[in-house]
Amino acid sequence: MLKSLQSDILHEAESQDLKVIIISAEGPVFSSGHDLKELTDERDPQYHAEVFQTCSEIMMLIQNHPVPVIAMVNGLATAAGCQLVASCDIAVASDKSSFATPGVNIGLFCSTPGVALGRAVPRKVALEMLFTGEPISAQEALLHGLLSRVVPEEQLEEETMRIARKIASLSRPVVSLGKAAFYKQLHQDLRKAYHLASQTMVDNVALRDGQEGIKAFIQKRKPVWSH
Amino acid sequence: MLKSLQSDILHEAESQDLKVIIISAEGPVFSSGHDLKELTDERDPQYHAEVFQTCSEIMMLIQNHPVPVIAMVNGLATAAGCQLVASCDIAVASDKSSFATPGVNIGLFCSTPGVALGRAVPRKVALEMLFTGEPISAQEALLHGLLSRVVPEEQLEEETMRIARKIASLSRPVVSLGKAAFYKQLHQDLRKAYHLASQTMVDNVALRDGQEGIKAFIQKRKPVWSH
Amino acid sequence: MLKSLQSDILHEAESQDLKVIIISAEGPVFSSGHDLKELTDERDPQYHAEVFQTCSEIMMLIQNHPVPVIAMVNGLATAAGCQLVASCDIAVASDKSSFATPGVNIGLFCSTPGVALGRAVPRKVALEMLFTGEPISAQEALLHGLLSRVVPEEQLEEETMRIARKIASLSRPVVSLGKAAFYKQLHQDLRKAYHLASQTMVDNVALRDGQEGIKAFIQKRKPVWSH
Repeated sequence: MLKSLQSDILHEAESQDLKVIIISAEGPVFSSGHDLKELTDERDPQYHAEVFQTCSEIMMLIQNHPVPVIAMVNGLATAAGCQLVASCDIAVASDKSSFATPGVNIGLFCSTPGVALGRAVPRKVALEMLFTGEPISAQEALLHGLLSRVVPEEQLEEETMRIARKIASLSRPVVSLGKAAFYKQLHQDLRKAYHLASQTMVDNVALRDGQEGIKAFIQKRKPVWSH
Repeated sequence: MLKSLQSDILHEAESQDLKVIIISAEGPVFSSGHDLKELTDERDPQYHAEVFQTCSEIMMLIQNHPVPVIAMVNGLATAAGCQLVASCDIAVASDKSSFATPGVNIGLFCSTPGVALGRAVPRKVALEMLFTGEPISAQEALLHGLLSRVVPEEQLEEETMRIARKIASLSRPVVSLGKAAFYKQLHQDLRKAYHLASQTMVDNVALRDGQEGIKAFIQKRKPVWSH
Repeated sequence: MLKSLQSDILHEAESQDLKVIIISAEGPVFSSGHDLKELTDERDPQYHAEVFQTCSEIMMLIQNHPVPVIAMVNGLATAAGCQLVASCDIAVASDKSSFATPGVNIGLFCSTPGVALGRAVPRKVALEMLFTGEPISAQEALLHGLLSRVVPEEQLEEETMRIARKIASLSRPVVSLGKAAFYKQLHQDLRKAYHLASQTMVDNVALRDGQEGIKAFIQKRKPVWSH
């Protein structure tokens, strides 16, 4: 499952026609994380290490991917499933969705999900989820920054597609440049971050689509992206 | 008072029977911070330094403690009292509670409380509290991540004990391992954080309670922790 | 415009009579950011670099300024205008205000605004704004930490002035010391942060206004700042 997800995310990643990725699920559960049968002592620690490493690689791949990745969640997202939502750039969920890191209940603290969760929500929210294993509602997840938007179930696909179509209408080189710079500067000190971001702006202005967009704006016409 | 709190937090910290700590207060004030009489120039700067250093040690001790520390707040928490709430892993408060860093009013900026506050709430929330000294309500504190939960006063103890009992029902080695890893990875870069957390997961799977929990789940029975 | 703003912010910065700065605008737009005519290829990349560098210097100047800087927003704040709001210490807005980083629409990703935005709001909120270019309301901005306070338009000036007057009634050396320490410790590791903040407290206690404030409190009288 992890390898298949990895392969799907990497599929035609470099194609200029790929503008945005949506990760969704079928059925009442978005994802409940790892298959625990892979984590018994019938397998050796090397195998366990490989499982968590592959999972972590996928989460980092989402951030490093050239196009925005949207999670479309309709149902329960727990453990590595909650981590997947936290790792996407944008997350839209139906109001019946809920989110939990319940590993403590089965003696397996959600430490890898905690990496993504701790970077998405305030520390006390993350710690209560990790220590109690109790779920939070979609509304709470929105309030605390785990989700970008919550809608009624019947509008979930429409709203997600609206955002995806908006992103698909933009210049891919511009979006890619901006995404990479955003994550890179986020944990730098302020002077270094501004140095990087200012250089990114200069590079962006010099892109063909950068000039086209600026000129189209000045000339009050729609831009025509050349990618 | 600080030394007594430090000693209480350290009491039997290594006992496997200790599962969770609750910090609460009697009376209408949770804590209003330092005794200002200790901070006049009748005492020398070395003494002042010792006061702040002891206080800082306690705040770090809470994070470094092997079990979760819960603040149960019913009333006013100001200055180092607000810092104490911000430093706990989980904080439950009654809806009549309020929180402030009013040091500026008496010419003593809440710089040490700002360390904990600035890591718990968004920057603009912290700065407005620090610059104006004005209190925020329990609801605002919840909204901004300073609290984990707000309940009516009459439910405060019940709700806090519910969370504490839940944590006490879990495996202490698993919770301790997870808590330490969470704080350690939180400010690392993503790759380093995932490396640490993946290794933590492998170590957790190898714990006796890790295997017991996973097997109990697969066998659809309750786990029996061996700690 | 940027140079004029920079000069205004620096005006009498070292005067002990300056206690607080308010940045506001006339008309329905707070600021819509850069003049795009400066960013066409009629100017060379060195010029573009200078524009972004000047802008970044101003944003850092706000943080490094000895007194608190308040944004008073009544209307639309976009791109570098939104960055300016995010960069202020405190931001008060009317409920009709809105905030956006719409650069992607014209092929120019808001990378420099993203530096300030990514430090003010949760990551998913920042990314949705940056990737879609869509505005958020004042209430959403408050909820996510971009604003300190939202009021009806007719109360905007009164509320902003109330906060400004409160800050102006405080000791400037105390506020300056605290502001500088807050930003400095914010991204340090916890031990280093507490070391810095504890030393700041000791220095603050030793200030004339520090002793005056503490003694006035103990003697139950109003402090008289000597700055």
